[in-house]
Amino acid sequence: VFRGGKVTAAEPGERHDRGIACEPRLELTALPGLPVIRPGDDLAELIAAGLRRTGMDLRHGDILVVASKAVSRAEGRFVDLATIEPSDRARELGREIDRDARMVELVLREASQISRKAREVLIVRHRLGFISANAGIDCSNAAPPHAPAGMGPWALLLPEDPDASADRIRRTLQNLSNAEIGVLVSDSFGRPFRLGTVGVAIGVSAVPSLWDRRGERDLFGRALEHTITALADQVAAAADLVAGQAAEGRPVVHVRGLAFTPGEYSAKDLCRPPEQDLYA
Amino acid sequence: VFRGGKVTAAEPGERHDRGIACEPRLELTALPGLPVIRPGDDLAELIAAGLRRTGMDLRHGDILVVASKAVSRAEGRFVDLATIEPSDRARELGREIDRDARMVELVLREASQISRKAREVLIVRHRLGFISANAGIDCSNAAPPHAPAGMGPWALLLPEDPDASADRIRRTLQNLSNAEIGVLVSDSFGRPFRLGTVGVAIGVSAVPSLWDRRGERDLFGRALEHTITALADQVAAAADLVAGQAAEGRPVVHVRGLAFTPGEYSAKDLCRPPEQDLYA
Repeated sequence: VFRGGKVTAAEPGERHDRGIACEPRLELTALPGLPVIRPGDDLAELIAAGLRRTGMDLRHGDILVVASKAVSRAEGRFVDLATIEPSDRARELGREIDRDARMVELVLREASQISRKAREVLIVRHRLGFISANAGIDCSNAAPPHAPAGMGPWALLLPEDPDASADRIRRTLQNLSNAEIGVLVSDSFGRPFRLGTVGVAIGVSAVPSLWDRRGERDLFGRALEHTITALADQVAAAADLVAGQAAEGRPVVHVRGLAFTPGEYSAKDLCRPPEQDLYA
Repeated sequence: VFRGGKVTAAEPGERHDRGIACEPRLELTALPGLPVIRPGDDLAELIAAGLRRTGMDLRHGDILVVASKAVSRAEGRFVDLATIEPSDRARELGREIDRDARMVELVLREASQISRKAREVLIVRHRLGFISANAGIDCSNAAPPHAPAGMGPWALLLPEDPDASADRIRRTLQNLSNAEIGVLVSDSFGRPFRLGTVGVAIGVSAVPSLWDRRGERDLFGRALEHTITALADQVAAAADLVAGQAAEGRPVVHVRGLAFTPGEYSAKDLCRPPEQDLYA
């Protein structure tokens, strides 16, 4: 149940971490000098090289936040819309919302449910579980490098499995550094009730998605009730402040100061289950 | 119109800042040693003393994020529920959602519209413009200091005018430091589609609430479309990571590294107008 400032007790099967201690200081640094990511690039190697250039090491508890667009580009998630044959339903929806039927077709293929329709936008539940506009498909900067003339327009899908992408990057960097770190794959989402986009985690490796404070004591000795913080989303939002957008070309942010116990988490932990949803 | 990862063009009259430049590094520090805030406390003076104790100065572009609970306590926003006479409507709603009718009465007095009802929770549009559960009224830690026995239970309302609260704190600190700074009043909100709470800005002084990137060029020379970042909300979310909750008693976080041009902004800039709302 959505509780505004508070969140109700966890459902059975939800995983929460109780081993987090916030340091009183958090430092976020965007890695400079990363190249424009190309299909087949090894992001972990590029990140390791970027860290070496800045003289930064990786320490236990560090988190790297990687923009989903960089992951998608490395994984070659480009789609030439000219190759997409829209279904009758996509054509009809495209007319209804005034949007290219091939783009609508791509959104429908990535979605499990339509939540709302508006001009040029479909708000859908993505097959990965979250609710977002146009299934997170990016139509800006979406051309692959050296795309032949006469192809496109291009779209860029989200990574196939962002948790797995985060996990691969984390394992490689951990092997290189011997530090137990966390990795998040982030995206910018709009919000139903508030203006402006915020960073959220769509892929999680080793970082607790949710931080369960229930059972801790407040200043007055009473147990804190109902307090579960969207830890991974807040880290992604903080990273978005330094990552900027494409103009700066800073798709990777290094976060230091959050002491967490690494574990098995998923960005799906952050998605409100449909049966608890009062709005979609 | 809600666009997921993107937000559509601003409406006339919306204020946006184009003078923000993100440094590649952001540092967030929770001020240690602040006392439990009491009605009548001068928060700006307490913050200045906290900064002096840590040897930190205030520099141009620094932001202080102050938890709404601390502001509410300083402003004496305590309510003894025993003094509240619930209306018939509050009694009926209280029975319906299984909640103390006096608490429901308080929520209704703070709200302009009910969005959803669920067990023990009313999701409402607050008179300040945002949508939140139970109008942001806090029932934990809500007793004032030295409350006489036999009174209560107590609730703590949000500040009467959080923009004005942020502005007062900013002006005092600016006079003490000669640095042009920003101040945010933050709260933790739940979200309709995602689990866990995140920090949001409910009071804004001098910091651009929204960061309008439209018209900037992306890496490939095309104009970035539709990109408006919820700057103040992301700063509040980042600060929430170091502020912790009541147990740590860290209601104030100092943020350095965001270069912004101070201006006249309001937390209302972050509230989606009802006519653009596809959900409430």
